[in-house]
Amino acid sequence: MLFEQITIVGVGLIGGSVGLAAKARGVAARVVGVDRDPSALAIARRLGALDSCCTGLAEGVAGSGLVVVCTPVDRVAEVVVAVAALVPPGTLLTDAGSTKAAIVAAVRGRLPVGVDYVPAHPLAGSEKSGPEHGSAELFVNRATAVVMSPFGADWGRTLAVGRFWEALGSRVVLMNAEEHDRVLGFTSHMPHAVASAVAGVTHSDWLRVTAGGFRDVTRIAAGDPKLWAAIFEANKGCVLSALSAFTNQLEQFRALLTAGDRAGLERWLTEGKQVRDALGT
Amino acid sequence: MLFEQITIVGVGLIGGSVGLAAKARGVAARVVGVDRDPSALAIARRLGALDSCCTGLAEGVAGSGLVVVCTPVDRVAEVVVAVAALVPPGTLLTDAGSTKAAIVAAVRGRLPVGVDYVPAHPLAGSEKSGPEHGSAELFVNRATAVVMSPFGADWGRTLAVGRFWEALGSRVVLMNAEEHDRVLGFTSHMPHAVASAVAGVTHSDWLRVTAGGFRDVTRIAAGDPKLWAAIFEANKGCVLSALSAFTNQLEQFRALLTAGDRAGLERWLTEGKQVRDALGT
Repeated sequence: MLFEQITIVGVGLIGGSVGLAAKARGVAARVVGVDRDPSALAIARRLGALDSCCTGLAEGVAGSGLVVVCTPVDRVAEVVVAVAALVPPGTLLTDAGSTKAAIVAAVRGRLPVGVDYVPAHPLAGSEKSGPEHGSAELFVNRATAVVMSPFGADWGRTLAVGRFWEALGSRVVLMNAEEHDRVLGFTSHMPHAVASAVAGVTHSDWLRVTAGGFRDVTRIAAGDPKLWAAIFEANKGCVLSALSAFTNQLEQFRALLTAGDRAGLERWLTEGKQVRDALGT
Repeated sequence: MLFEQITIVGVGLIGGSVGLAAKARGVAARVVGVDRDPSALAIARRLGALDSCCTGLAEGVAGSGLVVVCTPVDRVAEVVVAVAALVPPGTLLTDAGSTKAAIVAAVRGRLPVGVDYVPAHPLAGSEKSGPEHGSAELFVNRATAVVMSPFGADWGRTLAVGRFWEALGSRVVLMNAEEHDRVLGFTSHMPHAVASAVAGVTHSDWLRVTAGGFRDVTRIAAGDPKLWAAIFEANKGCVLSALSAFTNQLEQFRALLTAGDRAGLERWLTEGKQVRDALGT
């Protein structure tokens, strides 16, 4: 048992899964949920992700040693600042936002002394949303990026937050906020835009003539447009950079195909294959 | 039992799976395999995909009512023409090539009277290759495009080939060769190039910070570069068209993100989501 009580603010797919995993793995004796939407709270409670819940932040965070902010990315900073003003010194804060630098910048200078916020990003999710799609196993064998103390949180408290995400089943990777956003721009955000563009140019009457490849490439295009628009805006610069790198790579393909350069096409395809093979199945 | 004996020419992932499925489902009493590579034949025989095998085409097709050409796409036409010259009238030919128009054009005018070639494309595969990765279930619930008699094959014989692919577990979709190549350019070939470009711009030391989305988007990038270079060349015009449509779609995303148009981004993401949702999970 790492914590007597934790509070999850924002009980969607991720927040609900944090609750389920924390209960299933005995990470917290008691899990409190806070959300603006009473029906999300009711679902999460019924599924066993929460022991109690409320819509008020002050009531919800009282008595918790750790507050986990799982709201959409564009609301994380304001919630972190609001929670920090409500809790006693010694309370730990973390979050699950998909981008980090914009949140860190918005929070900087607004935390009371003694309240430690250690930003995090569990790389787990689903094209589905809502606590009804949560799972106690969502974080198992997934990476969680834990951002190294941008607010001078001491090493011990950074470790405590890292151990929390580890206790939910994930592998912790320490990163700084800028590195996180740059890498995730390539490994998550740009691929999402690409998947969405592939789906977007496909006529629905062609869907009967698709196979596993199309299904896999486009799976994440089913994600929540509101959540993803917020992620893209929060990581705009890095997403545009990753997009340029991708476009340049694809232009090489177009040039090789136009020129009928079979050996060049094979070499180009081999570049991608080597990276994908290194990831494993 | 649809056929007393069939011959599979080209015993890789697809050819091996045709053999396994034909045996498992009682589609043919006897399955003969022909391949230039004796070790592929040995593997397929050991796995039960073939009853007998040889490296010579004339020997391999003797006595078969149906010959299924499963070579790489750039060798299908020459093999079809060669087989047609060896078999008696009444023999059926089909293939499993990923593109159709170039094959149809190359075969046109070169078939003896009485030998019917009905082109097909089972939309099934894997990023892996070789008969050792074959499966009797590979075609189950997959579409097989069957090309309507470009050579004047009569309706009954087209049906016979369609029933063969259906008997392996797939759903038959009748198409003409040009329609097939245009649609597959969008639903299979362009997505493959896109997946490969995403993988190609990813540094291998970023792979530890990837999640299911990256894994899915890039899965097909692990496919065989030689096979795919041949597919791209065989469907060059349609692939370039699909690539332009994709690029235009992605440029809309870039413009919306650059402009900070959140509502526009949500609408753009919703377009892709609607198509993907229509496909189902």
